[in-house]
Amino acid sequence: MRKPRIVVLGAGYGGLMTVTRLQKQLGTNEAEVILINKNDYHYETTWLHEASAGTLHHDRVRYDVKDVVNTSKVNFLQTTVDDIKVEEKKVITSQGEVEFDYLVIALGAESETFGIQGLHEHAFMISNVNSARQIREHIELQFATYKNEEVPKDERLTIVVGGAGFTGIEFLGELGNRVPELCKEYDIDRSKVRIVCVEAAPMILPGFDPELVKYARATLEKKGVEFHIGTPLKEAKAGSVLIAKSEDEVEEIKAGTIVWAAGVRGNRVIEKAGIENMRARVKINRDLRVPGHDNIFIIGDCSLMINEETERPYPPTAQIAMQQGEVCARNIAALLHGKDDLEEFTPDIKGTVCSLGENDAIGVVYGKKLTGTKASFMKKVVDNRALYMVGGPSLVFKKGKFKFF
Amino acid sequence: MRKPRIVVLGAGYGGLMTVTRLQKQLGTNEAEVILINKNDYHYETTWLHEASAGTLHHDRVRYDVKDVVNTSKVNFLQTTVDDIKVEEKKVITSQGEVEFDYLVIALGAESETFGIQGLHEHAFMISNVNSARQIREHIELQFATYKNEEVPKDERLTIVVGGAGFTGIEFLGELGNRVPELCKEYDIDRSKVRIVCVEAAPMILPGFDPELVKYARATLEKKGVEFHIGTPLKEAKAGSVLIAKSEDEVEEIKAGTIVWAAGVRGNRVIEKAGIENMRARVKINRDLRVPGHDNIFIIGDCSLMINEETERPYPPTAQIAMQQGEVCARNIAALLHGKDDLEEFTPDIKGTVCSLGENDAIGVVYGKKLTGTKASFMKKVVDNRALYMVGGPSLVFKKGKFKFF
Repeated sequence: MRKPRIVVLGAGYGGLMTVTRLQKQLGTNEAEVILINKNDYHYETTWLHEASAGTLHHDRVRYDVKDVVNTSKVNFLQTTVDDIKVEEKKVITSQGEVEFDYLVIALGAESETFGIQGLHEHAFMISNVNSARQIREHIELQFATYKNEEVPKDERLTIVVGGAGFTGIEFLGELGNRVPELCKEYDIDRSKVRIVCVEAAPMILPGFDPELVKYARATLEKKGVEFHIGTPLKEAKAGSVLIAKSEDEVEEIKAGTIVWAAGVRGNRVIEKAGIENMRARVKINRDLRVPGHDNIFIIGDCSLMINEETERPYPPTAQIAMQQGEVCARNIAALLHGKDDLEEFTPDIKGTVCSLGENDAIGVVYGKKLTGTKASFMKKVVDNRALYMVGGPSLVFKKGKFKFF
Repeated sequence: MRKPRIVVLGAGYGGLMTVTRLQKQLGTNEAEVILINKNDYHYETTWLHEASAGTLHHDRVRYDVKDVVNTSKVNFLQTTVDDIKVEEKKVITSQGEVEFDYLVIALGAESETFGIQGLHEHAFMISNVNSARQIREHIELQFATYKNEEVPKDERLTIVVGGAGFTGIEFLGELGNRVPELCKEYDIDRSKVRIVCVEAAPMILPGFDPELVKYARATLEKKGVEFHIGTPLKEAKAGSVLIAKSEDEVEEIKAGTIVWAAGVRGNRVIEKAGIENMRARVKINRDLRVPGHDNIFIIGDCSLMINEETERPYPPTAQIAMQQGEVCARNIAALLHGKDDLEEFTPDIKGTVCSLGENDAIGVVYGKKLTGTKASFMKKVVDNRALYMVGGPSLVFKKGKFKFF
C-alpha cells in the first residue's frame, strides 16, 4: 500500500512550522512529506526591512531549509509552484507535477499595488531577499552617483516610502539610522537627503494605540522623516511620484528611490487554482481547511480568518502563520490517524512590537504598552522566538539578535 | 616687505611631496605656502583599481590632507582650480583669485577617450574616489538586480574593461578576485559572469618584459578574463560596446558595466591657461620649469619629459611625480635663497610592479624579474613607501598594506 503523501508549499513561517512539527509527530512509515520551496533557504520576512535599508546583511535574515528540515523524513524539492489542480490532487511546478493526498498551501503574500499606475515599473517592493538587497544596492548607488556627476542632482538622495503601515514604518526607522551612515560613506551633507513617507490613510500604523503612534511619529520625525498622511500616492514615474495633496491638487516629488510598502495580497497561485478568494486570500474553516476541500489546508498570508471581536480579518503576521502551522500539523496527523474532530484554530496574540530602528520601538506585549529600549528588547525577543520555534536553540545561536542595548 | 607666495595646485603625489618638503625646508618667515585641492583628502591614484573593484574600501585609499600638511606653515584651501592667468600670476578658483609668486602645477591626469563615441556617456573611468566607488556600487547593483528581475539578463553580469595597460590589467586582476565573492553574495553561478578585456594594441602591458606579460595573461585567463587584443573599441552604447574584430567586422558585446581604462591626458586647466602642451601635458625644462616661465613648475602627470635612452616620454607614474616633488621643493627653496643654478631632474626608476589581484603580481625591481607572491610583496612595499615618503611611519601604520601572504 502506498503511503499517504503530504505536500507542503512554501518554506516561510507557516510552511516550515508545519513541516518541522510533522517530522516530529509522524513516523517515517506513516506518510511521505514533501516540502516545495522556490529557494533552498527560508528568510525572515519580518526582518526584510533591515536588509533593504542595509542595516542588517541579507545572509543574517535567511537560513538553509536543510538546517531545520530532517531530510531523512522530509523530501525537499527546490522549485517554483506554478499552479494547483485541486480536483486532480496535483501541484504543477517548474520541474513537473507532484501528486498529493494532503496539501498545505503556505505560499505567503505578494505586494498589492491597488492598480496604482507605475508602481510595478518604478517602485521597489520589500518582498524577499532578492528585492531587499536590490533596494539596498540601489540606494547606495544613488549616493555614490551623486558625488560623481557633473551637476549633482539632489533628488537622487530622496527616498519615498509609500505606506505607513507596519512594514513602511519599520523600514523608515531603519532608513533613519542608515542615511547618516551613507552620508558619511559618500561625503554627503545629511541635509541633502530627504526621507518622505506617503500614506493614504488618515494616520500612521492604523490599529495601534494612539499614544504609541504619537511616539513613533515623533521619533521618526526626529530622524528626519517627512510625513504626508491622508495623501494618496496617485502614480509612480521614472524618478518621481505624484501625490494627491487635496482633491484637485497633485504634487510631484522627485525621488531617486521609490519603495512601495503599503499593501499585501495572497499568492497568485491561489487565483490560478480557482479556489474562491479575496485578493488571493482564502476564507478558511476554523480547522484551517478550504471549504469543500477536506484535504487542503491554507495557512499564513494566503489564509483569511475573521476576528469575531473586531469583525475584521486578522492581519497577515508571522505570529499567526506559525501558530497555524502547529495546528495544521496536528490536524493532518489526526486525519492520518483516522480522527474526524479536528482542532479549531484561535490566534493567541501575545503582543505586537513595531521597530523604529536599532534600539527603539513601540509595542503592546501581554497588554502592556512599551516604548524605547524596552520595546526594542522585546522586538528582539520576538525575533529570536521565531527562530527558536522553527529551529531550536542552535538556530537562535546562529541567526539570533543579541545586541540588546 | 610681503613674503613671497608659493602656490601649489593639487594634493596628489607630486603636490603633497612638494608641500611636505617645503614645510621642512623653509622657515615660516621665508615664504607663504598655499596648497589648493578640490577635496580635503589625498587619494592613492595607484590604488583606485582596488576601490573600483570593491576589494579595498575607498577610505583605505585616502587620507586627510591635514594629516600630513603642517597647517601652521601651509595654508590649505579646499577649492577647484578653474584657470591660471600665467602673465598676471593668478590662479582662478571657484572661491576667487589667488595670486602667486611661484606656482607648482600638480593637477594630475584626466581620462583620455581619444574621441571614441559614447565613452563619456556610457563608460566609467577609474579617475578618483568618487568614480571608483560609483563603479563598485554599479557592479554590485547589476548583480543584485539580476537576481530580482522576472527574466534575468545575463548581459548584466558582463563587465567590459577597455584597455590592457597598467590600470586595465590591475583592475582585471582585482575583478578576478571580486567576482567570485559577488557571485556568492548574490547567489549567482560564476559561469554566468563574463569579464572581457578589449585592447587596440597588439599586446597587453606594452613595454613590459614579454615573459612577465605571458605570466600576467595566463594568470588573468585562469581567473576567467577573456582577452580581445589588437581589437579597437569603436563605440560604447547604453548596455553594449562595438569592437572591431577586423577591418570590416564589428562585433557587439552586451555588457552591464563598461569601464574605460585605456588612456590618460593632462589636466584641462593647462589647455585653458594657454601653456604650450600636448594633450594637456607640458614639455618642461630639466629643472621642472615651464619654458619661458621661470616661476612656474609643472610636475606629475601634467608634465612631459623625454627619456633620452628610449626617445619616448616617461610614463605618468606616482614614482616620478614624487621624485619631481622633492626636486621641485629644493629648486623653489634655491630660488628663494637667491640661487640660480637649479637642480636638474632625472627619474630614478627603481622598478615597476603590476598587481594581478591580492597575492599575485609581476614586476621588475632593481632589474630583477619577479612574479607571484614575491612580486605581490614588492607591490605592497612600493605602496607603503609612497605613504612613508609623504607622511612618515605614522601614515604607513594608519593606511599601509600589511597582509603580505
